[in-house]
Amino acid sequence: METSSVRSLSQLSFFLPKPNRNKSYPSWPCKKPRTTQPTRLYCQKMYVPGFGEASPEKKAAKNMHDFFTYIAVRIVTAQLESYSPEAYEDLMEFLSRHSLNDGDKFCAALMRESPRHKGLAMRILEVRSSYCKNDFEWDNLKRLSVTIVEESNIRLMRDYVVETSPATESEK
Amino acid sequence: METSSVRSLSQLSFFLPKPNRNKSYPSWPCKKPRTTQPTRLYCQKMYVPGFGEASPEKKAAKNMHDFFTYIAVRIVTAQLESYSPEAYEDLMEFLSRHSLNDGDKFCAALMRESPRHKGLAMRILEVRSSYCKNDFEWDNLKRLSVTIVEESNIRLMRDYVVETSPATESEK
Repeated sequence: METSSVRSLSQLSFFLPKPNRNKSYPSWPCKKPRTTQPTRLYCQKMYVPGFGEASPEKKAAKNMHDFFTYIAVRIVTAQLESYSPEAYEDLMEFLSRHSLNDGDKFCAALMRESPRHKGLAMRILEVRSSYCKNDFEWDNLKRLSVTIVEESNIRLMRDYVVETSPATESEK
Repeated sequence: METSSVRSLSQLSFFLPKPNRNKSYPSWPCKKPRTTQPTRLYCQKMYVPGFGEASPEKKAAKNMHDFFTYIAVRIVTAQLESYSPEAYEDLMEFLSRHSLNDGDKFCAALMRESPRHKGLAMRILEVRSSYCKNDFEWDNLKRLSVTIVEESNIRLMRDYVVETSPATESEK
């Protein structure tokens, strides 16, 4: 079964509102262009367009929400397999018919399937709340994310240099 | 343009290894089943199967990585639109031909497109690193995620009660 619960994180178009182009700036602006525009509040952070009244954090949190539902389903499925094979079969059968892309939609459908399924849904809600608050290592997420970005940047630049430097090949 | 850079977060199958079913447990186990199995290390956390040697945090971090690339592209695009319309057109044209699903693949292709595009790619790498480390509000992500899970749970249960309680309707 395939799921894609966080697909929407970047399903945003690149349409941007037209800014004032009358001013001339260097081709690489400093990171705080807002400070040059008196109508905008001073902010140390880079301007991220396209999120309206939401924020990148809100967008990411919504996708983490679907991720936590997915994790909760995995946890409950594994528990059921050991302790209640009948309930495990019920849940697996339901999973084969319903997508986990939208965690809340999945839970709402599970609650309405039958009284037995409703028990499973309540368990999933309980587990995702507990997992999000107690088990998920948020500090670790930040640390791993920063590491992955740094390592990826180095790898991309190194690969490019190796690929575009014939001298490096001949020196071997 | 549509992108789905974090699609892979939950593209995992629900295949689970078969555990020992000889023991009998209550249908709802306590949250630390591992402590009853002497071959496993004691752990306060719920067991999340299916991540092999990785972890949910690692999986989430990989998807945050693609999200940060997406954010960086948005930031750079907005900056270019104000300061360098030619570079903006270059980037938008490239975006129309390449998917942002895999951020690193996108950057690698952008670097190799032309020397001008390489400059854009380097800028995107720089911005995603800076954004991830300095601008993104990690504490806010955790706070929002917990809030969304709690509110969603309450809403799902309330909707179910309202829907399945005809008495509530007649009392109005």
